[in-house]
Amino acid sequence: MSRQVMNYTVALGEYAYDIHIEPGCLNRIAGSLGGLVGDPSRCLIVSNTRIAPLYMKQVRAALEKAGWQVSECILPDGERFKTLETWSKILDALMQARLSRNEPVIALGGGVVGDMTGFAAACYRRGIPFVQMPTTLLAQVDSSVGGKTAINHPHGKNMIGAFYQPKLVWIDPQVLKTLDVRELRAGLGEAIKYGLIRDAEFLEWCASNLEKVLAFNADVLATLIHTSCRHKAEIVVADETEQGMRALLNLGHTFGHAIESMTHYTEYLHGEGVAIGTIMAARLSEQLGYAPAGTEQHIRDCYLSVGLPVEVPVFPAAAWLDAMGHDKKNVGSRIRYVLLRGIGDAFIAEDVQPEAIEALIASF
Amino acid sequence: MSRQVMNYTVALGEYAYDIHIEPGCLNRIAGSLGGLVGDPSRCLIVSNTRIAPLYMKQVRAALEKAGWQVSECILPDGERFKTLETWSKILDALMQARLSRNEPVIALGGGVVGDMTGFAAACYRRGIPFVQMPTTLLAQVDSSVGGKTAINHPHGKNMIGAFYQPKLVWIDPQVLKTLDVRELRAGLGEAIKYGLIRDAEFLEWCASNLEKVLAFNADVLATLIHTSCRHKAEIVVADETEQGMRALLNLGHTFGHAIESMTHYTEYLHGEGVAIGTIMAARLSEQLGYAPAGTEQHIRDCYLSVGLPVEVPVFPAAAWLDAMGHDKKNVGSRIRYVLLRGIGDAFIAEDVQPEAIEALIASF
Repeated sequence: MSRQVMNYTVALGEYAYDIHIEPGCLNRIAGSLGGLVGDPSRCLIVSNTRIAPLYMKQVRAALEKAGWQVSECILPDGERFKTLETWSKILDALMQARLSRNEPVIALGGGVVGDMTGFAAACYRRGIPFVQMPTTLLAQVDSSVGGKTAINHPHGKNMIGAFYQPKLVWIDPQVLKTLDVRELRAGLGEAIKYGLIRDAEFLEWCASNLEKVLAFNADVLATLIHTSCRHKAEIVVADETEQGMRALLNLGHTFGHAIESMTHYTEYLHGEGVAIGTIMAARLSEQLGYAPAGTEQHIRDCYLSVGLPVEVPVFPAAAWLDAMGHDKKNVGSRIRYVLLRGIGDAFIAEDVQPEAIEALIASF
Repeated sequence: MSRQVMNYTVALGEYAYDIHIEPGCLNRIAGSLGGLVGDPSRCLIVSNTRIAPLYMKQVRAALEKAGWQVSECILPDGERFKTLETWSKILDALMQARLSRNEPVIALGGGVVGDMTGFAAACYRRGIPFVQMPTTLLAQVDSSVGGKTAINHPHGKNMIGAFYQPKLVWIDPQVLKTLDVRELRAGLGEAIKYGLIRDAEFLEWCASNLEKVLAFNADVLATLIHTSCRHKAEIVVADETEQGMRALLNLGHTFGHAIESMTHYTEYLHGEGVAIGTIMAARLSEQLGYAPAGTEQHIRDCYLSVGLPVEVPVFPAAAWLDAMGHDKKNVGSRIRYVLLRGIGDAFIAEDVQPEAIEALIASF
């Protein structure tokens, strides 16, 4: 295993933080943590029932060796547990551990653990330091960077949350070895998103390195993660609270969230829903005359080679519109869509009519 | 009734907002609201079972006349309902009303309604505009200004929350006419706090105008509220997230929160707990040699003339320390106390030993 170290700073002024990417770094978190929040005292590690048995012991041991007093909070695994109820368990654990305002909480897990832990960190004592240790490719290339934290409401995904930046994102690509290949594919879908919205060259790089990624090649994964984090960080720095360009990151998400919601978060991984949603956004872009013919097919071929689902599930148009009407990316009664002018060139369309959506859905 | 209009701007840069104080202004909110968030669309008014029957109808009518589509959310009344469960009802109402990111929520009520509504506004879609219409003296002189929003955890008051500023604070001193005199006294206690920590002259003014305040004289109340809001705003602008001087506002609160918590939020109003807590802080200041003899007695006389409780309830020392150990104003394992060097001169003591607290408690 090589020792490829990459660092990227998310330049948010007073709230700037580092993304550290290094194979095997999982056990070396303690030194950086002390540098961030001061002398070792108490901390809480939040994980889930799938990740904790794999990595909790070693992270905990590394921190305790450095003098930290570590408490744990283990959540059930899965998007369907991204609820107010599960979130309140993290708050209970923070109270139980009696963490003070300057003692950190660490999210050790995928996007769900990171989103919920970040939101708990934002609210406990009105904000304590928080560190992301993402263990899925999706979390490493996307959700751990940028400070969007949230839980789901029964009527809409990520409706309750905060913009709250971590103090550090600590990424060990080696942990992906224990990842289910289905989750690896889903994460790759989110990396491909950066290619689709702003970097056609990166999309080609992903296509050429597909086999190495799916074979868990650590160097290739580190490069994939680094490029993705750079794109994410650039966008977040330009528009932290999604007043404008950050919304481009929602390519495929309006449809994707509807798919996740209509299937009760049990059939599709988030990255899978987004892949299908991106196919839909691409076809809509063609139907409305924004993107050249063949755009959808190009993306479809790409997802198929990755092994991502591309078939749009069948629901009545009313169910689609209702599921999307509750999507938080709405302004007033309009629904905003991220569309494509072509590969590598996304934009935000404010004026898409419901009729166009009905026609789109009917076309599948 | 005079038409005394006072405006004060809380100068928080990008997050600056106005405090508008005017007898009878309750029905004139619509014009200002449109100016803040754009053309009338949807809004949600959050109130409670005591305030809604008094004022909801007229506020609602005024907004509807201006073209707003108004939804309501009525909470149970009282500090013991300042819970995660009640808070989630506001989130449900926001989802039900389908408020978008730029549509406002209005808190019409006292400190509990304002704190919970502000925290819901901070989290729904990661933040929507929010307006405070405080209806108790305590909320008008203190809690509606400054952006501290929160709910209680079973193990500690205001432990879960956010710093989230309102877009407008709209204060009608006339609504205090329907206030229970007990609540008026409790609010006066919080106004007196500004005198104790930084303005001895204002304390004398309060003492001289006591009868007019307790007779609900609108002009005197407007002046009382304006001076209090000015003090609060100056402190908040200097230290929005309580890294330093804002903590002075917690005079009497470490003990006061413990009293509220040990009596399960049923025996004392918040302002009453703080009054007793301030007596304790004054005696501690004398015992540790910071304040001259007679400081406690001066404050005690003042509260007695207002009609506030001054008797310290009896609990074992261990119960006190435990209740205070969970207080969110702790740094590490130390407990910070706001103490007095004299009337009008508060400071933060970091080095108070638990033994000193035990001796203090034993002295009552």
